[in-house]
Amino acid sequence: MKIYICPGSYDPVTSGHADIITRAADHCDKLIIALGENSLKNTFFTLKERIAFLKKVFNGNEKIEIESYSGLTTEYARIKKATALVRGLRAVSDFEYEYQMAMLNRKLNPDVETLFFMASPEYSYISSGAVREFLRNDADITGLVPECIREDIIALSRKKMMK
Amino acid sequence: MKIYICPGSYDPVTSGHADIITRAADHCDKLIIALGENSLKNTFFTLKERIAFLKKVFNGNEKIEIESYSGLTTEYARIKKATALVRGLRAVSDFEYEYQMAMLNRKLNPDVETLFFMASPEYSYISSGAVREFLRNDADITGLVPECIREDIIALSRKKMMK
Amino acid sequence: MKIYICPGSYDPVTSGHADIITRAADHCDKLIIALGENSLKNTFFTLKERIAFLKKVFNGNEKIEIESYSGLTTEYARIKKATALVRGLRAVSDFEYEYQMAMLNRKLNPDVETLFFMASPEYSYISSGAVREFLRNDADITGLVPECIREDIIALSRKKMMK
Amino acid sequence: MKIYICPGSYDPVTSGHADIITRAADHCDKLIIALGENSLKNTFFTLKERIAFLKKVFNGNEKIEIESYSGLTTEYARIKKATALVRGLRAVSDFEYEYQMAMLNRKLNPDVETLFFMASPEYSYISSGAVREFLRNDADITGLVPECIREDIIALSRKKMMK
Amino acid sequence: MKIYICPGSYDPVTSGHADIITRAADHCDKLIIALGENSLKNTFFTLKERIAFLKKVFNGNEKIEIESYSGLTTEYARIKKATALVRGLRAVSDFEYEYQMAMLNRKLNPDVETLFFMASPEYSYISSGAVREFLRNDADITGLVPECIREDIIALSRKKMMK
Amino acid sequence: MKIYICPGSYDPVTSGHADIITRAADHCDKLIIALGENSLKNTFFTLKERIAFLKKVFNGNEKIEIESYSGLTTEYARIKKATALVRGLRAVSDFEYEYQMAMLNRKLNPDVETLFFMASPEYSYISSGAVREFLRNDADITGLVPECIREDIIALSRKKMMK
Repeated sequence: MKIYICPGSYDPVTSGHADIITRAADHCDKLIIALGENSLKNTFFTLKERIAFLKKVFNGNEKIEIESYSGLTTEYARIKKATALVRGLRAVSDFEYEYQMAMLNRKLNPDVETLFFMASPEYSYISSGAVREFLRNDADITGLVPECIREDIIALSRKKMMK
Repeated sequence: MKIYICPGSYDPVTSGHADIITRAADHCDKLIIALGENSLKNTFFTLKERIAFLKKVFNGNEKIEIESYSGLTTEYARIKKATALVRGLRAVSDFEYEYQMAMLNRKLNPDVETLFFMASPEYSYISSGAVREFLRNDADITGLVPECIREDIIALSRKKMMK
Repeated sequence: MKIYICPGSYDPVTSGHADIITRAADHCDKLIIALGENSLKNTFFTLKERIAFLKKVFNGNEKIEIESYSGLTTEYARIKKATALVRGLRAVSDFEYEYQMAMLNRKLNPDVETLFFMASPEYSYISSGAVREFLRNDADITGLVPECIREDIIALSRKKMMK
Repeated sequence: MKIYICPGSYDPVTSGHADIITRAADHCDKLIIALGENSLKNTFFTLKERIAFLKKVFNGNEKIEIESYSGLTTEYARIKKATALVRGLRAVSDFEYEYQMAMLNRKLNPDVETLFFMASPEYSYISSGAVREFLRNDADITGLVPECIREDIIALSRKKMMK
Repeated sequence: MKIYICPGSYDPVTSGHADIITRAADHCDKLIIALGENSLKNTFFTLKERIAFLKKVFNGNEKIEIESYSGLTTEYARIKKATALVRGLRAVSDFEYEYQMAMLNRKLNPDVETLFFMASPEYSYISSGAVREFLRNDADITGLVPECIREDIIALSRKKMMK
Repeated sequence: MKIYICPGSYDPVTSGHADIITRAADHCDKLIIALGENSLKNTFFTLKERIAFLKKVFNGNEKIEIESYSGLTTEYARIKKATALVRGLRAVSDFEYEYQMAMLNRKLNPDVETLFFMASPEYSYISSGAVREFLRNDADITGLVPECIREDIIALSRKKMMK
């Protein structure tokens, strides 16, 4: 059984993430969306909220599992018996960071490959950071996030900002 | 059965090619090394010679097949029932060219994905063009090409240049 | 009167060209699409054919004129009393080439600015070269070129290749 | 009337900013230098000080207005009836960030274009951050900022650092 | 006497740093490894610890001296009668940052050149930040740092993290 | 004695070349400008003409010698007892090509380093190709080439084009 891992913070999941994950799932038997619990990094949405968004988006896709993990991604991959990490590439700046990460991860665990998928052009300028910036300004996020969670994201964001 | 295609001209196959192909073969059931017959492009080694080099390098790897094709790569992939094209990424300039090709290929056939593997650092500066330049100057190609074909390549290259 | 110039070879005009030209025309009073007659460069379509395609695409847009010119673009701009050259940017490699050209053109004529528009994501991977490659392989060019000239391009291309 | 907007924090305005703004003003009827009031971002100079520098630099240029705004730049552009945002491009890293911003802004308001001007070579390495670093080390900022405000910047900076 | 300066924070020194420094020392009579004391920047290892690592690595190389400095690097170079700063280049993103720094430093002191060495491929993905990330996760740093200080780094890092 | 080599075709030498060469000569005892005789590559100016231009530009600088060579640059460096090749970096695209070349040259001869100097901003957009394009269009090349050879270049170019 071929198991792939899509690591990330998904704060929140974007249309770009959803596109890469759906395409990657076609190339393996199980795809684990893995949310890193990094205590140093503040997120806008809580781990529980981010997982809830992902569950709603990939509900019904039996190949996809959603989990959280802490520590090194390659160590998590070893435990999960995964053979590859999946990453999307949008731009040249992505490329250089991802190259460095892929080489460091290979050093940590040569049995785990990193597979890259090119972002679809229509999603190439989207990032979780851009979605959060839109939310902060109450701007329309249609198209930036999967439609089925758009209203949930907006409602939750407004509640957070009212605090 | 998961079938991947590694298209290229392999003029000649380098250590970098061999690394990507070996790693990619781990992620599929059959990997076809596909040499495009492009009448517009002159090669240093003939199609027959290039195939012979590849056969010697991958001899014994039962997952790997070597073929030639003409026309569009995506059309060839459709005939072969392949689900992905495999490409290596060495540098930023690779990235931009490969992005354009991946998007055009997806337009031609949305059912064929392009999967990218990062070149290993020790092969990141190697290209078939560099090997040919070394051969033209009778320089030592150790490390640039798989060891088992190094002497064949040198012998054949010298014969060609004496003509 | 603000006059802008869009120089290029348009061999043939693509959906990406049409997008940039239409957007640029909103920012001036007259936009001249200027086809450079460069005797050193072979084109697939003749100057007359390329102009005919452009005329059909921009027919009815009263701001747009289509002309050919020879020699330096900045000299042509001076004669036409244009204040800016318009260029589209798709990728990092475009950026560096265009930077060099813009600086050289400014040296030739400091009164002519170069204005840049970012390519729309959906056209970011399209080039005239890609269209010609599709035509050579009889592949579907829908979306790559403006719809109103798609059939004309295919018909003319087939006639040329039969020769 | 063609209205352009040059958004930024101008902390402080550099020779590079002044060059782009002066060139852009030639292509419109009114150019608004718009200082974003972003409460999350700390600046070295206060909004009032940054506006005072800009006023001194562009004093006498009747096309240029200086304002501050909060919220989304595209919403501010809509209120001001502006048809374009003006941005300078210095380097590849600028290009990728600006591409993402231009596409997001277009999504927010398709009626506002982003126009790009290439930085002049002699200013291509200058940034507000570099000016502040020079000030912190009491180094000579001649050439980095418009000459007419150089002494004001130094005096104000010294006063701030003595606190 | 030709004196070169290798400025940096070396937090900690990596195999990549050691490679560049050793190669650069071949091209001058004295090479000063200069650790900037920047009060704004927090380091993982103290200045004293970082100097101790460097001393152990370059112990016996009579050309190399290790010092700390504060203020502008070009001013420090002037005092030391150095004619060049030495920098390594790993990637495109390095290139753009280093270009800006080299031009600013030349403005500060035209008598000090910046010399660039390309990182060896096997070290091209290594950075002090990556070493620290490995340490935080108790991962194997073999190859990332000079072998003679590997155990010291691990021991010291564990002591720090237990606090 | 420290000997450096500046390889190139100098067709013709530009102000950018002259800047890098002059700066590099400050860091060695002898600098050899080495013109590769590559029979495959057509040049606009003959080897004799290109050498004459260089001689006029560097006449009086006792450190600088001008020679031609054939074959591999690293082999020529070995014969000349040179310890480094000197290259200028203008842009990201330069960087990637130069990285590949530097690594291949090191493989051919590990005793020869490649040293990089950043192009001065005012020369960052100049290339021999741009100079030839200006000459073809009879445009003003002031600033693009060293002033002392400007008229010689123009006269020789006109003579060639009249043929």
